[in-house]
Amino acid sequence: MDALVRELQRAVGSRYVLSRPQELLVYEYDGAVERALPGVVAVPGTAAQAAQVVAIARRHGLPVVPRGAGTGLSGGAIPIHGGVLMPMTRLNRVLEIDPLERMAIVEPGVVNIDISKAAEPYGLRYAPDPSSQKACTIGGNVAENAGGPHCLAYGVTTNHVMGMEIVLADGTLAWVGGRNHELPGYDLRGVLIGSEGTLAVTTKVAVRLQPVPEAVTTILAIFQDEDDASAAVTAIVGAGIVPAAIEMMDRLTIQAVEPAIHAGYPADAGAVLLVEVEGLREPVAEESEEVQQVCYRHGATEVRVADDPTLRERLWAGRKTALGALGRLAPNYYLLDGVVPRTKILEALRRIREISGEYALPIANVFHAGDGNLHPCILFDERMPGQTQRSREAGGAVLRTCIDLGGALSGEHGVGLEKQEYMELSFSEADMDAMARLNPAFGAGDTFNPGKVFPTGASCVELLQHPAIARLGVDAFV
Amino acid sequence: MDALVRELQRAVGSRYVLSRPQELLVYEYDGAVERALPGVVAVPGTAAQAAQVVAIARRHGLPVVPRGAGTGLSGGAIPIHGGVLMPMTRLNRVLEIDPLERMAIVEPGVVNIDISKAAEPYGLRYAPDPSSQKACTIGGNVAENAGGPHCLAYGVTTNHVMGMEIVLADGTLAWVGGRNHELPGYDLRGVLIGSEGTLAVTTKVAVRLQPVPEAVTTILAIFQDEDDASAAVTAIVGAGIVPAAIEMMDRLTIQAVEPAIHAGYPADAGAVLLVEVEGLREPVAEESEEVQQVCYRHGATEVRVADDPTLRERLWAGRKTALGALGRLAPNYYLLDGVVPRTKILEALRRIREISGEYALPIANVFHAGDGNLHPCILFDERMPGQTQRSREAGGAVLRTCIDLGGALSGEHGVGLEKQEYMELSFSEADMDAMARLNPAFGAGDTFNPGKVFPTGASCVELLQHPAIARLGVDAFV
Repeated sequence: MDALVRELQRAVGSRYVLSRPQELLVYEYDGAVERALPGVVAVPGTAAQAAQVVAIARRHGLPVVPRGAGTGLSGGAIPIHGGVLMPMTRLNRVLEIDPLERMAIVEPGVVNIDISKAAEPYGLRYAPDPSSQKACTIGGNVAENAGGPHCLAYGVTTNHVMGMEIVLADGTLAWVGGRNHELPGYDLRGVLIGSEGTLAVTTKVAVRLQPVPEAVTTILAIFQDEDDASAAVTAIVGAGIVPAAIEMMDRLTIQAVEPAIHAGYPADAGAVLLVEVEGLREPVAEESEEVQQVCYRHGATEVRVADDPTLRERLWAGRKTALGALGRLAPNYYLLDGVVPRTKILEALRRIREISGEYALPIANVFHAGDGNLHPCILFDERMPGQTQRSREAGGAVLRTCIDLGGALSGEHGVGLEKQEYMELSFSEADMDAMARLNPAFGAGDTFNPGKVFPTGASCVELLQHPAIARLGVDAFV
Repeated sequence: MDALVRELQRAVGSRYVLSRPQELLVYEYDGAVERALPGVVAVPGTAAQAAQVVAIARRHGLPVVPRGAGTGLSGGAIPIHGGVLMPMTRLNRVLEIDPLERMAIVEPGVVNIDISKAAEPYGLRYAPDPSSQKACTIGGNVAENAGGPHCLAYGVTTNHVMGMEIVLADGTLAWVGGRNHELPGYDLRGVLIGSEGTLAVTTKVAVRLQPVPEAVTTILAIFQDEDDASAAVTAIVGAGIVPAAIEMMDRLTIQAVEPAIHAGYPADAGAVLLVEVEGLREPVAEESEEVQQVCYRHGATEVRVADDPTLRERLWAGRKTALGALGRLAPNYYLLDGVVPRTKILEALRRIREISGEYALPIANVFHAGDGNLHPCILFDERMPGQTQRSREAGGAVLRTCIDLGGALSGEHGVGLEKQEYMELSFSEADMDAMARLNPAFGAGDTFNPGKVFPTGASCVELLQHPAIARLGVDAFV
């Protein structure tokens, strides 16, 4: 252990190696429910240092868990097998903005929104915008193939990342993909994006930039129930409009949000839709008009419209603070990320209500309605015996419902720790075997983020018997 | 051999198995320069039959080469190691159009443009449009990750295909990816798209559909030289406009096209730009105006505009018949597919002129200027001693130039046979090794389309000693 720490200190500098229990506690969490302590934390300042950390860990037979801002919602950054946790947050420079090629090269620790800020002087932006975009890093976005409200129109991370520099398991640096174009050959870039840190560590990212739209209009529509709002979603898309975003909040979410931010939602509001249209001025005006009409036709009791940034932000405020506001209803939540076909939203919400009754736990829904990406949020209190376990079971029932309706386990948060046991609902053993067999192509073995994505039969006891854990001493890990 | 033919006949029906030399000759070609005869041709009528063909070939130790319409330009469908050639053209049904989910499930033999025709009654279309879209099939598009003029705005095949049913090397059918959404886990779908038929055979494709734009305007601008036209391309993109397409033809192409279709290009025209803008009516009018102004500012001598379908088609006619018209200048051409950063187009064209002089072969350029995807077309006469070889060498020099300028070997045609020897210009041995190591994940071995994408040291003699070839007898293969 001492030798490991000394080697890491030589590689990244003493102040960037953390090994005391009180220091490690900070890294026990990400945005998910589970927790686990790393054996040691090493924070590299350059790509070369990151490569050295990987080489050192490998020499000691320890896994490396890369970490961005720790905002992930599937437990991807939790070092369940201990080892070396490697936050990439010091690699936070925008290295290059090329407005003519419309691309940027950034380090993985750059915060998502800071790419758009750096590109703004050129009239450009980076499109994918996770709700955590003021905190989450592009490295984490790449690992999870992150989405966001505006991915309805523009696609997810993999559609906007052209290539990456990576550290392989043997501690060498390599570049995959292109800088500003597609490359022929097998799409290694594509496999790595969304591989949740299990195959390599990203040290540079080449992203596409796109023009900032001339006009943006936000429409907030209030409905008496979810059925009307869901029908409006289908009608908007059916009318041939592709809004940049269609977000929905259900009754329970509204009940939490209203006392928190006083958005002015009526007491009997059953659902709120937020629709954003953007582009050139005239069509935005035209589409905004059409969205309003569709909402009224489907029973909206009130529609508010804003095209000024400050007023728009006010309409978004309810949506953006929704998760925080849910804290008013219960001390803990388990946030799911299931997907259903857009036409099945209503059916999914109905079944989620049933599950909520069955498990006697409130479930709030705040989600990307336009692409059927539900975020059911199961509210519970971990101090009440059995509630944590019951919330997990209810979560399983919700995910099963999504799969039954022809959807998927995850839209944008990844599988991580939380959904690995449900992978078999969506994938056959052969499917998962085919995925697992990609690992050797990268020579990854158990080097990176072991125990994620794929289901393991491992109990806690087995985890404690993991050689890396045994070597570092159990105390550091439990 | 007889046993093989009998088994294939039982699987797909006697009339769909071709083994006589005069029948096989038809399948010696695709759109590339190379040729090779298959051992036998089997044309399945269903996905299950395709799976049977694969199982039978495997039992006989023979490779399977899937084939679409044979329009490929990199030799991807040429059965260089003989074996069983499997055209997928009977699997040509549009199985499902879902206008609300905006997706379609189609068989691989469906012609690209027929997807859009089937979706048209719903106001939808399939976006990627290879220039061969009236002939090429979606299965081939998936294999090559095909592009097209309008991929500037909408992205290539991989951005529009959500999932596929495939036949694996063991003759089993599997589904990869989703039907209407992203899936978590490693992106097997992504690896298969662009794998050029080397990992699996596609038997169904789930594609995204998008709304047909309300208005489309085509702008044709004539310039005195390529420098002005190239500067206009950069200026259009720099102005924040994202046209659906920006196509360019150079002086030599114009000289071939004008006598062929009498487009009315002036005798001294040095370059023609075709720009298409589409969307809602007002912004299209606005952007069209801006594109015209940019063209005039950069020295356009004439600008023609059309928004009526018939007139638009007339403006496109020169571009769409360009390759055929080049036949007026020489009996053969070798069409390249290099990519350069958009800002390097001018430099690339200058160097291509130098290469043309050096190898004493005319090179015409007709290409997707908006995304820097060059299609230099080397004109030669195979009856003149040494010209075929010289055209290959000139092609190598052009591809080297693209790589030197920070570009890529292929933008949309794939590597196939033609570019495998140049892969090492773009990829290190480790890169190619990493790609090759994906093969075992699919259990593909040499089952599908062997001898493609990756460089081989194999000479013709070695090819003839390939076990499959030896078994079927050399005569059938040379």
